Amino acid sequence: MSLTVYRKAHFNAAHRLYKEEWSNEKNALIFGKCSNPNYHGHNYDLEVGVTGEIDEETGFLIDLKILKKVIYEEVEVPFDHKNLNLEVEAFKTVNPTVENIAIEIYNRIVKRLDSRFDISVKLYETPRNFVVYTG
Amino acid sequence: MSLTVYRKAHFNAAHRLYKEEWSNEKNALIFGKCSNPNYHGHNYDLEVGVTGEIDEETGFLIDLKILKKVIYEEVEVPFDHKNLNLEVEAFKTVNPTVENIAIEIYNRIVKRLDSRFDISVKLYETPRNFVVYTG
Amino acid sequence: MSLTVYRKAHFNAAHRLYKEEWSNEKNALIFGKCSNPNYHGHNYDLEVGVTGEIDEETGFLIDLKILKKVIYEEVEVPFDHKNLNLEVEAFKTVNPTVENIAIEIYNRIVKRLDSRFDISVKLYETPRNFVVYTG
Amino acid sequence: MSLTVYRKAHFNAAHRLYKEEWSNEKNALIFGKCSNPNYHGHNYDLEVGVTGEIDEETGFLIDLKILKKVIYEEVEVPFDHKNLNLEVEAFKTVNPTVENIAIEIYNRIVKRLDSRFDISVKLYETPRNFVVYTG
Amino acid sequence: MSLTVYRKAHFNAAHRLYKEEWSNEKNALIFGKCSNPNYHGHNYDLEVGVTGEIDEETGFLIDLKILKKVIYEEVEVPFDHKNLNLEVEAFKTVNPTVENIAIEIYNRIVKRLDSRFDISVKLYETPRNFVVYTG
Amino acid sequence: MSLTVYRKAHFNAAHRLYKEEWSNEKNALIFGKCSNPNYHGHNYDLEVGVTGEIDEETGFLIDLKILKKVIYEEVEVPFDHKNLNLEVEAFKTVNPTVENIAIEIYNRIVKRLDSRFDISVKLYETPRNFVVYTG
Repeated sequence: MSLTVYRKAHFNAAHRLYKEEWSNEKNALIFGKCSNPNYHGHNYDLEVGVTGEIDEETGFLIDLKILKKVIYEEVEVPFDHKNLNLEVEAFKTVNPTVENIAIEIYNRIVKRLDSRFDISVKLYETPRNFVVYTG
Repeated sequence: MSLTVYRKAHFNAAHRLYKEEWSNEKNALIFGKCSNPNYHGHNYDLEVGVTGEIDEETGFLIDLKILKKVIYEEVEVPFDHKNLNLEVEAFKTVNPTVENIAIEIYNRIVKRLDSRFDISVKLYETPRNFVVYTG
Repeated sequence: MSLTVYRKAHFNAAHRLYKEEWSNEKNALIFGKCSNPNYHGHNYDLEVGVTGEIDEETGFLIDLKILKKVIYEEVEVPFDHKNLNLEVEAFKTVNPTVENIAIEIYNRIVKRLDSRFDISVKLYETPRNFVVYTG
Repeated sequence: MSLTVYRKAHFNAAHRLYKEEWSNEKNALIFGKCSNPNYHGHNYDLEVGVTGEIDEETGFLIDLKILKKVIYEEVEVPFDHKNLNLEVEAFKTVNPTVENIAIEIYNRIVKRLDSRFDISVKLYETPRNFVVYTG
Repeated sequence: MSLTVYRKAHFNAAHRLYKEEWSNEKNALIFGKCSNPNYHGHNYDLEVGVTGEIDEETGFLIDLKILKKVIYEEVEVPFDHKNLNLEVEAFKTVNPTVENIAIEIYNRIVKRLDSRFDISVKLYETPRNFVVYTG
Repeated sequence: MSLTVYRKAHFNAAHRLYKEEWSNEKNALIFGKCSNPNYHGHNYDLEVGVTGEIDEETGFLIDLKILKKVIYEEVEVPFDHKNLNLEVEAFKTVNPTVENIAIEIYNRIVKRLDSRFDISVKLYETPRNFVVYTG
């Protein structure tokens, strides 16, 4: 038996793909136009899934008001209208690929929710490129 | 090896979140504006998944005409343009949260299809809130 | 020359199509299952368009924060999670067809914005049925 | 731990459902209007998922430029603007149901990517009918 | 004052772009892969708009059941799961470009509705290519 | 009589709203978080409409291959994966609001197409905020 509740959110941010240890030439070779030193940006679309058991009392798996608040505080406030490389601590040392952003979002949300839940994160960088991370 | 065929459908219904055993104050506290005694409503979007083996003869996992008919009879006829609390038997005693509606849909469909199939139900209450139930 | 800025919003509501002057039979004949006395509901999607001239100083036609606030106060607060027939004054006497809801929204928004703007309202009752009203 | 990267693509093609061993009557009975001898067609939407481990060096699970190139060469070039029954070798003997097309796409892609990856194929024949195949 | 009601529908069809008066080489030069002699196909998405005045009695501009029936009889029955070049009379002599298909749909619908209405047809050949025709 | 052909495209870019003549405080007051000095970004979705008469010879209003090429050269190459403020000449002096970006795109496209056509530009900054400019 498996029941999962999903909540969508979104944020708009600038980023560049870049490794400090590499030369500019190597960054351009591996990351192409995503490595533009002046940054580019995306409308990131996020779906957070919470898997667990239904509370027979309320008929909720989780109160969506709580999930919405956690996503707001852990993702929207720190990421929306930000430059991910310069303004999010984790991405000062970790390359902000869509894979790494999804892992960072997972880690932020999992520590705020009860450990009886399994969490999944689906993150769209564009409508054609996206990832799913399940911890 | 896993192959799943999906069929979408939709229905428009009114509901309210409400527990008879609770006071109006407690209903309002826990369910907020979803507990409006005059009801509100949604365009519910449904995706039913059927997992099984391909029939080498036809190249179908399941004839979609059959799946479409089952969804029509078990979900669209009883739920579309209805008040879920007042007009669907199950929700006279069970709170029609999106979780419970998905479970009810699952139970209705699974009893109509061959037991060699595994069934999943994805139900959108709004484009931003949805659940997946797999029995 | 024409420049229009659009802002989307949404609300979830219950309604029924019904004319008090008509018998139940005539209501059922004309409005079909939309006339269910127990109500049904929709996720209404709204696009408000504002046509005018660009402010050379800011590069804005209208500050979207203002438009968003007007839509919130005039549409989302009074309509979201409500029963339109019972809880919105206008629809106690006017049948809440998608046409009449769009006209009501138009009238509410136009009186809050500067008369130099032309307003349009696009309202989806379902993804397949919608109207555009331009005053 | 599970991380999956997805890439979308699409192709437009003609097909008919048809078994040579069957009479025209039996084809019409089983496949209905999908068996029209003059063909009909679809805009097929494809999502290819690649599951594996992140490369700590780049922050990529797979370089999407490579995945995009594989999908282009293995699916878009041979399938786009083609008659699947007449112009794709596999479907001269296999009925081009959406199930069989997804399996064919899976087999083409899996042989081009490193065996450390798990592959999934989601194929939409229409926005309401789709399949997922995971090998 | 302008009020327009829209109804969506869709059909799946095969076609090729082709002018009989031209050589195969010229057809291939002008129409490219759309001229494949074996046909290709699309999921066509259609939005029919009807502009007029609201009926104060019902609150409807037009009864959508009527519009839905006209679209079904004039477009879905003759076009869905068909080869447009071979099975729709108009396209035996007129090239079935998305422009010409939209004009044909307009002409079929306009003759079925009251002349007090203005009709518009929006037709998507793919999610990225579409036309609007207003007579 | 009116016939319009539309072609969609998209680009991902960074920008900030900012007027050099204003203090940082005034920029922050008027443009809010859109004025972040480190930039933020968007997936811009673009629909270009071309209104004109059908070419009876081809059945095309305009060859979409030509329109696609113009959009690619005038919008995608100069804007995609760029910082609009720093790397697009026009936005060194003009504030890159969605209104001004749409006007710039219009001006670039109109000078490349035959003057017998009327052009419209619809530009989405997010799925909820967009503009239409018709010259």
